[in-house]
Amino acid sequence: LRTLRLIIEYNGKGLSGFQLQSQLPADKTVQGALEKALERMTQHPVRLRAASRTDAGVHARGQVVAFETDRDRIPCEGFARGVNDLLPEGIVVRAAEEAPPGWHPRRQARGKHYRYVLWVDPYPTAIDAHRVWWRSQPLDLEAMNQAGSLLLGTHDFEAFRSAGCSAHHAMRTLYRVEVVPGPRSEVHIEVLGNAFVRNMVRIIAGNLVEVGQGRRAPESLGVLLASRDRTQGGMTAPASGLCLEEVIYDDRLPPRPKNNADHGPG
Amino acid sequence: LRTLRLIIEYNGKGLSGFQLQSQLPADKTVQGALEKALERMTQHPVRLRAASRTDAGVHARGQVVAFETDRDRIPCEGFARGVNDLLPEGIVVRAAEEAPPGWHPRRQARGKHYRYVLWVDPYPTAIDAHRVWWRSQPLDLEAMNQAGSLLLGTHDFEAFRSAGCSAHHAMRTLYRVEVVPGPRSEVHIEVLGNAFVRNMVRIIAGNLVEVGQGRRAPESLGVLLASRDRTQGGMTAPASGLCLEEVIYDDRLPPRPKNNADHGPG
Repeated sequence: LRTLRLIIEYNGKGLSGFQLQSQLPADKTVQGALEKALERMTQHPVRLRAASRTDAGVHARGQVVAFETDRDRIPCEGFARGVNDLLPEGIVVRAAEEAPPGWHPRRQARGKHYRYVLWVDPYPTAIDAHRVWWRSQPLDLEAMNQAGSLLLGTHDFEAFRSAGCSAHHAMRTLYRVEVVPGPRSEVHIEVLGNAFVRNMVRIIAGNLVEVGQGRRAPESLGVLLASRDRTQGGMTAPASGLCLEEVIYDDRLPPRPKNNADHGPG
Repeated sequence: LRTLRLIIEYNGKGLSGFQLQSQLPADKTVQGALEKALERMTQHPVRLRAASRTDAGVHARGQVVAFETDRDRIPCEGFARGVNDLLPEGIVVRAAEEAPPGWHPRRQARGKHYRYVLWVDPYPTAIDAHRVWWRSQPLDLEAMNQAGSLLLGTHDFEAFRSAGCSAHHAMRTLYRVEVVPGPRSEVHIEVLGNAFVRNMVRIIAGNLVEVGQGRRAPESLGVLLASRDRTQGGMTAPASGLCLEEVIYDDRLPPRPKNNADHGPG
């Protein structure tokens, strides 16, 4: 039995998130579409394991999945190309490789890099609308960075977790929260952490934007973190701006402690 | 009577091109959607003049249009915002300003900057698929640049013009044809010219890609140009990779000679 690891890119627009939902057509979820394509390739049932359960509308350039197959003849590259021919528009396999038996993309992950993309401009964008959050007023990036730095390190992120999160606790470690100018009118919020509670990156982004607009003091993010109270915080930024850029397995990050469950799309 | 000039961005995917087509719903063409939105704003009939008639599937970040209105009270910025609220997804006004009476966005243009975006990667992209042409084999950018340089200057571009082009002749001037690496796996073909015959940029892109793949010698583009024969050339690259980036009116470019009709989307 082989274990294969795939890197997946998808356009979250029009999709109902990563996770299979029995009441939806297979092609409306990434997992459903992928399992269907993999089952056609392998001619046997496939159940995927994934690094992250991204929500409806959230994008990924570096989602990682793994599964088992007894098809020994198909080389990885041919496998990836064949699956791409079977996938619906908006979902592609970007790489395929052999993995150790039973390898688990979430449990083995040392961390994840999410990027939240803002379009900061008096006017919206048409060509990139699906992957940004449009903010028409200028933002104070320095204040946002000051606020973001207060979240670095290991904390209880209870105040940055949405209802319905099934993780046992919200202790997580953030290695990077940085707000940097992107191309054209884009502003990128780069968030790198060992793991994330539900909607954590979108709640961070929502609060940082309020700081950038001057509606919230940078220091208030430290107060919010200490409060452990979601109701003290700002809005959850919309899914469209969020992208799972990369799942990190190598020694750029330290190994994760045991029993640190990871739930939800950040 | 005021003349207003608008800069328009649109996602060509799902649109049937710029020009109004009486047999199609208004929202399937950029002109149709814009005229409908402007008519609702002004409460009078509107007929647009445009810098370029982009084809179905072609994008624009800097299309320029002009029209007349007798509504004196609406300031430009409020006008643009109001129109954006009325436009369908995929079309936005990026700027609005007063223009001299009767100003014509095509006749006054000194040139246009088109970008053709290739996605050069063994695997496709999902998030940006709508705005690239995927080529799975590596390309020789040096050979492409060598070939592109043979097109610079004033020539009869008959061999780079598609059937159905209504221009009287194909004499045009190219100021820049440059192939440069873009972000991630993108390669950009930057084309700057005084005006363009129909499908000119897409035919240039198709030929340059054949050069990059080694299927055509760089020097053959000079031969093709001299032949004035479209049937000697390579394929027309697909619409998805093409974007009208900017229409140039200022003295970055010399004024155009008179009677130089400009037809089609490049």
